[in-house]
Amino acid sequence: MNEHSFIETSGRCFISAKDKNNDKYHRILEAAVSVFAKQGIFQSTVSQIAKEAGVADGTIYLYFKNKDDILVHFFSFKAKQVFDLFRQEVDKADNAVEKLRNLIRCHLEEFQRDRNMAVVYQSVTRQNVPTVRKEIKEMSGMYSDIVLEIIEQGQMEDSVRKDLYLSLVKRFILGAVEEVINTWLRSGGKYDLTSMADPLIDLFIRGIGNTN
Amino acid sequence: MNEHSFIETSGRCFISAKDKNNDKYHRILEAAVSVFAKQGIFQSTVSQIAKEAGVADGTIYLYFKNKDDILVHFFSFKAKQVFDLFRQEVDKADNAVEKLRNLIRCHLEEFQRDRNMAVVYQSVTRQNVPTVRKEIKEMSGMYSDIVLEIIEQGQMEDSVRKDLYLSLVKRFILGAVEEVINTWLRSGGKYDLTSMADPLIDLFIRGIGNTN
Repeated sequence: MNEHSFIETSGRCFISAKDKNNDKYHRILEAAVSVFAKQGIFQSTVSQIAKEAGVADGTIYLYFKNKDDILVHFFSFKAKQVFDLFRQEVDKADNAVEKLRNLIRCHLEEFQRDRNMAVVYQSVTRQNVPTVRKEIKEMSGMYSDIVLEIIEQGQMEDSVRKDLYLSLVKRFILGAVEEVINTWLRSGGKYDLTSMADPLIDLFIRGIGNTN
Repeated sequence: MNEHSFIETSGRCFISAKDKNNDKYHRILEAAVSVFAKQGIFQSTVSQIAKEAGVADGTIYLYFKNKDDILVHFFSFKAKQVFDLFRQEVDKADNAVEKLRNLIRCHLEEFQRDRNMAVVYQSVTRQNVPTVRKEIKEMSGMYSDIVLEIIEQGQMEDSVRKDLYLSLVKRFILGAVEEVINTWLRSGGKYDLTSMADPLIDLFIRGIGNTN
């Protein structure tokens, strides 16, 4: 259940579909995320999730305590798997600018590839959902740590300014990436989200100010 | 009901509390936003809103069709009032950098001042709530228009680069500001949100890259 496998093909990052479908746990989790994305978490019922997964209602309770517990698993398994992939992609690059590029490209690629996950992730992180407060904090901390590491490396390499308020830079980067994803979701996903990666990194690195 | 009045004191922007409390409509709207912020929109009931507002359940229906309609009013009156204030503050400045500063400062000030509004606004804009899809699109368009205007003025004034992908810059700015607000909300509002305005504007204007 906890086995992850990542496949690298032609420079794109993605998680193997195999892992996510190898048992009922994953099928129910996928079905739940799909139902949550379609109609919102609070309006969704366990019966709807069972129907979407093609299992009996009772089967859900073999794997999850209740609807809230499915959301906890979404963060501690599914979203975490994506964040682990971000880390892997970042570690592949040598310098800070390329690390930032890998992070943002992988973030946009994964969220584009799994739109249901994107909808649920983006909406839950902005809501006050007590049951997953701890998990959201962990995810957010994980992302922050990666960005912080990249910025500090960039400062050592002299590609990033030294007079930065680091905790603000983390929010600045995460916020911009999430709003780009949010706009894409609101548009119905009508364009290639990953095409935003390079212009976005350019904005971070060069900023919008005219330095001449 | 539609009368707005804005007061400017010692350079800070805020909406007069008078307008928001001058009749039951406003009292119910404030109560609803407070209940929504505390426990989420979908878990809130009309009875809870009536109790919070100190009115009978039936009184709610003199002003609003149902809970969804309250949310529509939140956007078309309360949030719009704040956005009108942003526009006023922006118009007070002469150059693009100062306009951007006024926009971001006012945004942080208003969301700090009315934390319930901030919680509801931030959470609804990330959820798929069909009843207010049109209103959210309008708000987002209003903000986009202001940012676009500022960027274009900055380009004419030569304080902003000309080779920018404008629709991305809008998301970049809005996303960063919203994430700063979101982090503040998640922290329980423990620090002065407006202290983030100047460092944030500095990040937009100078960028994080080292230009030396």
